[in-house]
Amino acid sequence: MPSFGLRHRRAWASLLSQLLRPSGLVCIREVHFHSQVSEAVITSQLKPHQEKSNFIIKTPKGTRDLSPQQMVIREKILDMVVGCFKRHGAKRLDTPAFELKEMLTEKYGEDSGLIYDLKDQGGELLSLRYDLTVPFARYLAMNKVKRMKRYHVGKVWRRESPTIVQGRYREFCQCDFDIAGQFDPMIPDAECLKIMCEILSGLQLGDFLIKANRDCSCFEGKHMDKGLGLFPLSSQVNDRRILDGMLAVCGVPESKFHAICSSIDKLDKISWNDVRHEMVAKKGLAPEVADRIGDYVQCHGGVSLIEEMLQDSRLSQNKQALEGLGDLKLLFEYLTLFGIAEKISFDLSLARGLDYYTGVIYEAVLLQTPAQSEESLNVGSVAAGGRYDGLVGMFDPKGHKVPCVGLSIGVERIFTILEQRIKTSGQKIRTTETQVFVATPQKNFLHERLKLISELWDAGIKAELLYKNNPKLLTQLHYCEHMGIPLVVIIGEQELKEGVIKLRSVASREEVAIKRESLVTEIQKRLSES
Amino acid sequence: MPSFGLRHRRAWASLLSQLLRPSGLVCIREVHFHSQVSEAVITSQLKPHQEKSNFIIKTPKGTRDLSPQQMVIREKILDMVVGCFKRHGAKRLDTPAFELKEMLTEKYGEDSGLIYDLKDQGGELLSLRYDLTVPFARYLAMNKVKRMKRYHVGKVWRRESPTIVQGRYREFCQCDFDIAGQFDPMIPDAECLKIMCEILSGLQLGDFLIKANRDCSCFEGKHMDKGLGLFPLSSQVNDRRILDGMLAVCGVPESKFHAICSSIDKLDKISWNDVRHEMVAKKGLAPEVADRIGDYVQCHGGVSLIEEMLQDSRLSQNKQALEGLGDLKLLFEYLTLFGIAEKISFDLSLARGLDYYTGVIYEAVLLQTPAQSEESLNVGSVAAGGRYDGLVGMFDPKGHKVPCVGLSIGVERIFTILEQRIKTSGQKIRTTETQVFVATPQKNFLHERLKLISELWDAGIKAELLYKNNPKLLTQLHYCEHMGIPLVVIIGEQELKEGVIKLRSVASREEVAIKRESLVTEIQKRLSES
Repeated sequence: MPSFGLRHRRAWASLLSQLLRPSGLVCIREVHFHSQVSEAVITSQLKPHQEKSNFIIKTPKGTRDLSPQQMVIREKILDMVVGCFKRHGAKRLDTPAFELKEMLTEKYGEDSGLIYDLKDQGGELLSLRYDLTVPFARYLAMNKVKRMKRYHVGKVWRRESPTIVQGRYREFCQCDFDIAGQFDPMIPDAECLKIMCEILSGLQLGDFLIKANRDCSCFEGKHMDKGLGLFPLSSQVNDRRILDGMLAVCGVPESKFHAICSSIDKLDKISWNDVRHEMVAKKGLAPEVADRIGDYVQCHGGVSLIEEMLQDSRLSQNKQALEGLGDLKLLFEYLTLFGIAEKISFDLSLARGLDYYTGVIYEAVLLQTPAQSEESLNVGSVAAGGRYDGLVGMFDPKGHKVPCVGLSIGVERIFTILEQRIKTSGQKIRTTETQVFVATPQKNFLHERLKLISELWDAGIKAELLYKNNPKLLTQLHYCEHMGIPLVVIIGEQELKEGVIKLRSVASREEVAIKRESLVTEIQKRLSES
Repeated sequence: MPSFGLRHRRAWASLLSQLLRPSGLVCIREVHFHSQVSEAVITSQLKPHQEKSNFIIKTPKGTRDLSPQQMVIREKILDMVVGCFKRHGAKRLDTPAFELKEMLTEKYGEDSGLIYDLKDQGGELLSLRYDLTVPFARYLAMNKVKRMKRYHVGKVWRRESPTIVQGRYREFCQCDFDIAGQFDPMIPDAECLKIMCEILSGLQLGDFLIKANRDCSCFEGKHMDKGLGLFPLSSQVNDRRILDGMLAVCGVPESKFHAICSSIDKLDKISWNDVRHEMVAKKGLAPEVADRIGDYVQCHGGVSLIEEMLQDSRLSQNKQALEGLGDLKLLFEYLTLFGIAEKISFDLSLARGLDYYTGVIYEAVLLQTPAQSEESLNVGSVAAGGRYDGLVGMFDPKGHKVPCVGLSIGVERIFTILEQRIKTSGQKIRTTETQVFVATPQKNFLHERLKLISELWDAGIKAELLYKNNPKLLTQLHYCEHMGIPLVVIIGEQELKEGVIKLRSVASREEVAIKRESLVTEIQKRLSES
């Protein structure tokens, strides 16, 4: 950081105009994208001093600026999420936005193509991080940390085709909480689910959706099958060992596990009949094997379903499945003690992250309501996670494992929903926290205003004034009403003569005269009362 | 954000071992860096199942992870800085980490080579942002915003040769505050300087350096010439119009302004004699012209120096210089009302950002002390800024201007200094905020502990327990002492029978029995008292 700000303005403005042809139809962006001609060549070919009327100014595809209004909502969500992570004793960690490319290689399977690589500018090969989990595992292995409860809030980047209406972006914020270390079974796992519940109920996403979900008939697909009733926030749990065991006992050859799982994964988008058709017609599964799978993956429920599966004649013969079911039973015991068992549904179709996770997996899905959009939309997971006991070992030179379990909150989707809700409600959002405005009714009072506001700032009071030598009083008062500033301090000739200041409440329009020397104390008193 | 966590584990682990030659001397990083051979080729050439003992795991050059201890310090700095920005009524803005490449083109002059470009993966050409100022100007122009007071905290990236001891990184955090809009002269400019002073004194960087600066003789260069005495935090102000005017009246041909300014800019690193030599021998300036410049650039002072310059026979004949001096005089008038005039030094040698800034420029420099490092170091600017009235117009299709003035706080250098200070003091930093620990002296009390801690969490109390079925009491109490947790809640057979809970203060080791149902209230009372 050798210098702040910007240097060397140079010929940007003139280059801009030079780049535009007489026709005015070629914009800079197009020149860069399609021709890759060097600047020198373009400059010499094009006539100077054209108007830059076709210059398109925008953010990169799939990204956006967050306006002050949006930042207020975003900050509220993050405060809530981070507050919960701290309540559970997590430490904060930060990692660079990019990693050595090979740190990310072979971690994301078919999604690897979505990783943003940096240009090779004669140094290391770098990629923007794709999530916060791999950097965490890299940190643990690099620093030989065997035990850690950490949270991480940061942006991640994925080159997806953005569907912005659904809250999908190429740059988005994630909030991760993870517990690394060898502990007794299912205690950290249960805490992760507790955290997910605390955050999702704290954000009152449920309330929001309850209202709009009265007309249940407009929802389709597996979510309505689940009998979630009026609670459209669906939290599912499964275990990859149960999935593997289930596929094995149904008669799926191990070579087809991966393909069949990716079919099962589609059950939140298409019907069982379509999934079955894909398994048989495209993936060559015997119809009776597919039907056996169908019996399982359409099951969902609580502890009683786990008990049922433990008694299941086929499944109970599979060692892996038995282990997974035993752990899930223990997990539900803990979830009951936490008072959240009824919020979690055991779902044999939950197949997410199969290749990566090693034990329990979970996902919270929000259903977008018809009130918000033309058609009923599944806005996808707002929180998800699971146990990944093998990832740290992939980074460790000797393969030493550090078992981990964690969760990730999808801030972007939650943000989209809350922003929509605030828009609908017409609620006004304050974008500043200013408490006091310093005004004057007379001309030539800038010096007094500056002295006054400086005192307020030095006392820690949030204060503003207009950057005008002689602003009108009405303009100043309008500004306060517009910005939601509660108090106005007014100084004029009369006040200066009497050694007082007028303190005005913007809401009630009441004014009182206060001794100049007691002003800060009086304001602090008023602010602590409100 | 289609899925959370990771998918498709695949053959990373096996690839790792395959990549290592029998000799064990080739690490993955080297293979990637130097050969660029496709994975398939490497895999087929190398023998599988080698130990991965030479796998080097690290963060990219010039970047670092921030540990929980470091994050606590970082967060404290950011809270302080953001608190000040909010006190001055700023709104928060966020922009993407990368911009369309052409948005950054021709903005940074000779530093453009330091911009990180993203790889062309068949889409737009993108670059990581180099600062927060250009994205702000782009935002204003894109949204046709004519007036805005905003702050922005975020990472920026520069491909510099990192000198980590001086707190220079390729990824670093900046905190920017800017005021955009057409206002009466110097009022926003003065507020920016007030903010810089509030932040730098709030962080107590001065105190820190005062102590170590008693031996002034070990400092060299222009900073000691300034007579800053015991205050090694030097805040300088200048105006590019004064600089231009000064060069003109000294007889520098306009074609040499840029070259001569970059020589003047070196005065914080080399002596006037060396700078003069460079001007004459390398840049072909007449010796008498250089001497005239020397008379000016070695000047520094307050209002009296401005008055002196206004009377200067040569300078007062230059319109630009007169304008600049007039504005600076007004600025110092406001700085006096803000009570900070004596903290700012008018310095004719301050030439930073010359090509970019259009008016007042300022920079706060900290001098590293010999106590912290082997030799006396100028750790460079910790805060800087100025007026840039032309930048927004460079983005606007019709060139509409929005005058701006702002400042940037260099968090990384401040962080380096504070971290060093904490290390030296031996001060212990708590990395969690846990208030209560839930413990048991007996076996088989996991269920009771889970019920209890769940109650605490639901009441908003920050609580932890050990993830063990049967932890030893001593282990639990040691954990509290180690982590600085103030309260312990203890439940055992006796307490369960009597319907009470023991509440223990870790510091005093006092224990009191409390009715189970009053536990939350009692804890909240204790916490509000402390």
